[in-house]
Amino acid sequence: MAGAEIIAVGSELLTPAKIDTNSLWLTGQLNDLGVEVVRKSVVGDDRERLTAAIRGALECAEIVILCGGLGPTEDDLTRDAAASALGRELIFSQEICDTIEERFRRFNRKMVDINRRQAYLVTGANALPNDRGTAPGQWIEHQGKILILLPGPPEELKSMFAKQCLERFKRVLPPRVIRTREFRVAGMPESDLDQLIAPIYTRYTNPTTTILSSVGGIDVHLRAQCDTEQEAEALLDEVAGQIEPLLAPRIISRNGEPIEKVVGDLLRTRGARLSVAESATGGMLGEWITSIPNSSDYFVGGYLTYSDEMKTRLLGVPEELLKTHTAVSEPVARAMAEGARQRTGSDYALSVTGYAGPDGDDIGTMFIGLAGPDGTEVRRIKLPGDRNRIRALTVQNSLDFLRQRLNQ
Amino acid sequence: MAGAEIIAVGSELLTPAKIDTNSLWLTGQLNDLGVEVVRKSVVGDDRERLTAAIRGALECAEIVILCGGLGPTEDDLTRDAAASALGRELIFSQEICDTIEERFRRFNRKMVDINRRQAYLVTGANALPNDRGTAPGQWIEHQGKILILLPGPPEELKSMFAKQCLERFKRVLPPRVIRTREFRVAGMPESDLDQLIAPIYTRYTNPTTTILSSVGGIDVHLRAQCDTEQEAEALLDEVAGQIEPLLAPRIISRNGEPIEKVVGDLLRTRGARLSVAESATGGMLGEWITSIPNSSDYFVGGYLTYSDEMKTRLLGVPEELLKTHTAVSEPVARAMAEGARQRTGSDYALSVTGYAGPDGDDIGTMFIGLAGPDGTEVRRIKLPGDRNRIRALTVQNSLDFLRQRLNQ
Repeated sequence: MAGAEIIAVGSELLTPAKIDTNSLWLTGQLNDLGVEVVRKSVVGDDRERLTAAIRGALECAEIVILCGGLGPTEDDLTRDAAASALGRELIFSQEICDTIEERFRRFNRKMVDINRRQAYLVTGANALPNDRGTAPGQWIEHQGKILILLPGPPEELKSMFAKQCLERFKRVLPPRVIRTREFRVAGMPESDLDQLIAPIYTRYTNPTTTILSSVGGIDVHLRAQCDTEQEAEALLDEVAGQIEPLLAPRIISRNGEPIEKVVGDLLRTRGARLSVAESATGGMLGEWITSIPNSSDYFVGGYLTYSDEMKTRLLGVPEELLKTHTAVSEPVARAMAEGARQRTGSDYALSVTGYAGPDGDDIGTMFIGLAGPDGTEVRRIKLPGDRNRIRALTVQNSLDFLRQRLNQ
Repeated sequence: MAGAEIIAVGSELLTPAKIDTNSLWLTGQLNDLGVEVVRKSVVGDDRERLTAAIRGALECAEIVILCGGLGPTEDDLTRDAAASALGRELIFSQEICDTIEERFRRFNRKMVDINRRQAYLVTGANALPNDRGTAPGQWIEHQGKILILLPGPPEELKSMFAKQCLERFKRVLPPRVIRTREFRVAGMPESDLDQLIAPIYTRYTNPTTTILSSVGGIDVHLRAQCDTEQEAEALLDEVAGQIEPLLAPRIISRNGEPIEKVVGDLLRTRGARLSVAESATGGMLGEWITSIPNSSDYFVGGYLTYSDEMKTRLLGVPEELLKTHTAVSEPVARAMAEGARQRTGSDYALSVTGYAGPDGDDIGTMFIGLAGPDGTEVRRIKLPGDRNRIRALTVQNSLDFLRQRLNQ
């Protein structure tokens, strides 16, 4: 399997606010060709560091793609560094120089001298014409490896890759097929999930398995690379077929859909309407639900009852209950859910009350109430993390609570 | 000056949709310490490649920071690779293991066996306690260089860097004086802001000026690096003194505080209480407000009235008004704000109604109502972007509306 390394060149990409996005697009393109990206780097405009980075990359990867540093100025060093790393010379190409000059003429401008720098090619390189700018790219084959120099501006890079590189790759790369499977899981910690499925996925290097946790849930990705589609799907069937039964009740989607979309679709299908009564989450539950377009099909609204007084005033939670049990309690979560359901006239109502921190012994303790046509249930959970994480995990768990009820 | 290399570890970061954002935050922190980042890399969960990357980094940089790969699973290889790269052993720490076990106990869970993996330290490393998660970090000094292992989850990484690394760096790095100024601006597009202040900041290379736009507002950062504090402050005074008057009415804070914090402090100072009535934002306004600890000092709660029926039922918006003007109108925004203020008994109430999309000609049109002791005002705004961006900018504008009123 050929692995690729992408090196983005430019000191501005090493500042706190700049992101290299070319490598994301290139990764997609390379993956489609069956090539995995094994490393990405950003290197500044520094001849020695860049040369060292190219040498290191050629030792570890079959394909090395450099983006940027092909401009006409002093700090455009990619050509120089590539030549040094390969131990080759840079040679001037009159043909390329003429092309650049012609391009300037077309825009009614005169080529300035520094642009001649862009007409130098590494010995043995194929020039890659640039139909969006002046700097040509370069395709260099070296001891069975491929080194490609692409311009930094995204529209130049994309056009050049699509028009000049794709066909060349297809000629030199073995045909490969990549197929993926994905499960999104809610309501369990990452370490528990891993312990459950690691005994299976660690037995396979193909497909590869990635487990990625976020506030929206845990994603399990399987990715198979094979010569044919049949082979890839068969491998995925084999591994997914073992993993899926272990996770089944926790799987919320198989296509990356977030839980707020899954629950929304369930409500729509069942013709049911939902309301909420939020204390600790302060609106986050409603926000997640309404982040889905057309959520008005099933979400009517609800209450933010942040103070005790509002729990009584807006939801009718008895003052006695709040005094006896405190606002963070099973009976209050129950009364909040039932109050919201009754006062909005919705079919289901979710309530949340708890301690999101930042301080206190009970931080992370949450009560989630769910009132519905079949009665009311309350769950108590204890969540880790900071205020924002606790709130987000609470929302995830609330929606999963409703998902399970709707699926009963 | 010592240069740093940051290596983000994780195969998921080598896929087309994932970005390593930890390195951006770390770059800002290192820059503040006077350390330039000379290379950033992303390496997958591959023992040999990761070991080679660490070795290469230690050859080129004085400081090497690894982020991620400290979890408990098979593919968390950072500890192993760091030990190999340095030619050191990994040793088990019973003390760290006890700390991890204790953490699990606090969350009423039992530590599973794989978590023992997180209790291994590279020989000679200082363990960096993790107050947000299980994996400790490691600080390793090696032949005059520094290798640091940090956890991948951003909240864990940030907390650990701030609490464990900053002081250690200050002890080993030469003292440099860096002084910064920051303005956070709300309620104007980034391009307008840049056009306004670019004629000033482009004349200076020290301080450097960075403009960073997010859904919470636009941050203008000035950063001066000098030999003395006096020099740095004088440079900042010179540039900020020209920029500030141009932005004055739009500046919401000078210390990076988000608008929800600024407005919260204003409400607390004035002893005023706030409620909300949200339609298009579906809870996001309440969520932002309550993301601030102790927001219960001034936020009482409110209403999510996503459907027309709820606007009438929960807020008393007359059905006639909805029929005549539609829900997205000045009179309905007014009635929502007044309804929320009256029914909750709060001093101020903010209401939001509008079209967040994804479709329709009126997408981005929002009415924001503000009811208070001095009467009710409604603003109509038209916002660009997708559904999520429109909703977030609406919340930003709503809070800025209230900020201006409170400052009158």
